[in-house]
Amino acid sequence: MPRITCPVLKTKVTTAQEAATHIGHGQRVGMSGFTGAGYPKAVPGAVAERAKAAHGRGEDFSIELWTGASTAPELDGVLAEAGVIAKRLPFQSDPTLRAKINSGATEYIDTHLSHSAQQAWFGFYGNLDVAVVEVAAILPNGMLVPGSSVGNNKTWLELADKVILEVNSWHPRAYEGFHDVYYGTKRPPERRPIQLLEPMQRIGDPYLRVDPGKVVAVVETDAPDRNLPFKSPDENSKAMAGHLVDFLRHEISHGRLPANLFPLQSGVGNVANAVMAELAESEFEHLTAYTEVIQDGMLDLLDTGKLTAVSATSFSLSAERAASFNARAEEYKGRILLRTQEISNHPEAIRRLGVIAINGMVEADIYGNVNSTHVMGSSIINGIGGSGDFARNAYLNFFVSPSVAKGGAISSIVPFASHIDHTEHDTQIIVTEQGLADLRGLSPSVRAKRIIAACAHPDYRDRLQDYYDRAVAANPEGQHTPHLLSEAFRWHENYQQHGRM
Amino acid sequence: MPRITCPVLKTKVTTAQEAATHIGHGQRVGMSGFTGAGYPKAVPGAVAERAKAAHGRGEDFSIELWTGASTAPELDGVLAEAGVIAKRLPFQSDPTLRAKINSGATEYIDTHLSHSAQQAWFGFYGNLDVAVVEVAAILPNGMLVPGSSVGNNKTWLELADKVILEVNSWHPRAYEGFHDVYYGTKRPPERRPIQLLEPMQRIGDPYLRVDPGKVVAVVETDAPDRNLPFKSPDENSKAMAGHLVDFLRHEISHGRLPANLFPLQSGVGNVANAVMAELAESEFEHLTAYTEVIQDGMLDLLDTGKLTAVSATSFSLSAERAASFNARAEEYKGRILLRTQEISNHPEAIRRLGVIAINGMVEADIYGNVNSTHVMGSSIINGIGGSGDFARNAYLNFFVSPSVAKGGAISSIVPFASHIDHTEHDTQIIVTEQGLADLRGLSPSVRAKRIIAACAHPDYRDRLQDYYDRAVAANPEGQHTPHLLSEAFRWHENYQQHGRM
Repeated sequence: MPRITCPVLKTKVTTAQEAATHIGHGQRVGMSGFTGAGYPKAVPGAVAERAKAAHGRGEDFSIELWTGASTAPELDGVLAEAGVIAKRLPFQSDPTLRAKINSGATEYIDTHLSHSAQQAWFGFYGNLDVAVVEVAAILPNGMLVPGSSVGNNKTWLELADKVILEVNSWHPRAYEGFHDVYYGTKRPPERRPIQLLEPMQRIGDPYLRVDPGKVVAVVETDAPDRNLPFKSPDENSKAMAGHLVDFLRHEISHGRLPANLFPLQSGVGNVANAVMAELAESEFEHLTAYTEVIQDGMLDLLDTGKLTAVSATSFSLSAERAASFNARAEEYKGRILLRTQEISNHPEAIRRLGVIAINGMVEADIYGNVNSTHVMGSSIINGIGGSGDFARNAYLNFFVSPSVAKGGAISSIVPFASHIDHTEHDTQIIVTEQGLADLRGLSPSVRAKRIIAACAHPDYRDRLQDYYDRAVAANPEGQHTPHLLSEAFRWHENYQQHGRM
Repeated sequence: MPRITCPVLKTKVTTAQEAATHIGHGQRVGMSGFTGAGYPKAVPGAVAERAKAAHGRGEDFSIELWTGASTAPELDGVLAEAGVIAKRLPFQSDPTLRAKINSGATEYIDTHLSHSAQQAWFGFYGNLDVAVVEVAAILPNGMLVPGSSVGNNKTWLELADKVILEVNSWHPRAYEGFHDVYYGTKRPPERRPIQLLEPMQRIGDPYLRVDPGKVVAVVETDAPDRNLPFKSPDENSKAMAGHLVDFLRHEISHGRLPANLFPLQSGVGNVANAVMAELAESEFEHLTAYTEVIQDGMLDLLDTGKLTAVSATSFSLSAERAASFNARAEEYKGRILLRTQEISNHPEAIRRLGVIAINGMVEADIYGNVNSTHVMGSSIINGIGGSGDFARNAYLNFFVSPSVAKGGAISSIVPFASHIDHTEHDTQIIVTEQGLADLRGLSPSVRAKRIIAACAHPDYRDRLQDYYDRAVAANPEGQHTPHLLSEAFRWHENYQQHGRM
């Protein structure tokens, strides 16, 4: 079945090399892609080649690159490697790009994922020159069937002066009907309530729209998404998932959660998969999810029937799981809905639905301030992603990490977080394999006692308690959040100087 | 005109002393009051007397106290003085209470103001035993005419097992019609969109409801709200207001704001009044406000006609302005609406309306992380209040402070904020009397250069630049947010040890 059936756009089919000539030095380019799904596979490489040739001639060639979230080696990787990315937003996780950001070669704007689209169309980031968006098919009327992610594609297609489409036949043609693209967002004062009442409600269209007059090239591809290998949950992940699921049972028993919970959000990674595995083996039924990303664990939970349905903006599957999903896509129709990230991460929707948010962290301090993004204060890892959108507006939020890293050299519970992405006002529940600290309704001082006792690794617990006790003693008029500023970051300094906190 | 015309509730009229007997040791008590307006004037003092008597007999007497926000000496002051407040939420600004919190005698839960009501009815803070709510009148059918603030009153009246009403005839009887109490909030999954489309739209009732069967006492009072004196804007405030208003003009000229702006929010204080004064002398017209608190400056702006209307949850006026408002209240009807703080601060409403948020700060670090709550990391000042609700969801947010405090001994721009309430992901525009730094779409490193150049006081600018330069040099692989952790808080330590940063 041909993927491009629009007579007008069929005439625009060309090579990636030809398409890439529409992208020039100094331009702002919005590309598709969210957690390694639905990113363009061919044009970025061709842009990298153009840039290398230009650099070889001694010419400048760099762009500002906007995406949905993280992409893949074929996008962030090749462009970072070629030194093309002067500025990048709103989330990344590519090792080559990360190195460029941390070396100062690339400016990185780490915004909340729910803010990126609107701030772009408010004009806060400047004019968007070109959009490069991967889709699964182009219909006869020119409408676009999205692929394995929606992300910011609607906004990039609307804002860009020129559009390049990649039509990837690796995506199942059956993707038609899996998406809900909300076209109701407006600038103030024309904004209206988003009439979303439950996770699987349709409030938009199954298709992306594009002005055919803006389309300068259509490129055909047949390449898989990044497909990171799935790792079975390790003992730590299982322990954390166990604490978390036990806590959900505790909340049900106290009447603060219904038996089928509220819609789940879980960040990307091992722990998220472990929580899904724990739920799969549990008594819970009729669960739903309102989340960003569908990982293997969530698809498994859908398969068991315990999870009724999932709203997200993207997949992030292993190669095997992607292959099995693609082969059986029709079976999931009506149980999976992919939305724009503006809606999947919208404060209005998250608060209304009462989402239970589960996100990883790098470290938490004893008062519950959470670092999600930096190593030792200065170097970025990935970015805040949607964790702020979800944590702030959730009914319940969990921040989860093993209590130690690097074989015990680093404690994830520290006196003072070396970068703060989620403040004490936002964080509710901290979980490590050691245990769970429920911080709701507690003052910072009481939080500290709970976190140290429940979450810290035994190797670090006494030293944390000692820091806290001495901070209490040193601040007779500062008992609300007692700190010893002269040694607040000493643990991080120890690691930098001696390789151990 | 009698204020209590409900036959049933009239039978409950009694003294404050008698009413206070319904409040006992260990109870949770929800009282009205928001920024020194609409708090009960008599019962708290009677509770303090009861407690002192109990303490004199060697008995324990303490309560958990929930309010809307800050109150006054007659509430937080007398109860803190008597050692009654074991736990307090969600915002305070009383000197006696602050000292109790900082000495460790009182646990303080500093939540976002939009979260406090819902987290209470989610059951996160435990059962509410008694509500003490001030109103302007009780109607024949038992409905309550609210006074100078709404705050969390709806929720406290709903949740409490027992209710004590104070009917304060100092409030104009003409308050009837000034309020909009939304009764549509629900727990998930029954939550529905809040159908608020513009600041002055009514979505609720003019009255508070109470189950008459729960009312155990009605106390009559005739005492004014706290009424802090109004200070004319000083030179610094005028300079900051000037930078801010110029920036709004700049945004209009670039098509990013309409000529009448979007609804304004401004925090409590001198700068807020100065911004209103600057707007009063400006070319702006047909302005609106969607804010927490109506101060003198905003009322002045209403009087000039430049401000069409204001939605808030409370007044916070000087004695003279309160007197003039009370005398002429009828003239303001239809131009002022007081809502529950759940709605005045609701992320859904703030984001939809595109609010322009202006809030004070204690300090910002060079990367734009903002401290709104603490002195030197450990001691609380007031609390986060609504600044997080507004800043995160605003169309534009401003954080404003003079560049130095304590006669130049403290810089409000520092290497690392000693407490972080608003992260780099949230803050957009930093303003001091020195200038304004627009941080939108900039990486942390570029932000640092802007903030140091535009906002820092000349006495500290070179040292900030030196910190940044040495942090850059010391972190070849940490150029995203370069820090020197060993001296990140040295400025604060200098102040603690030598009285100067």
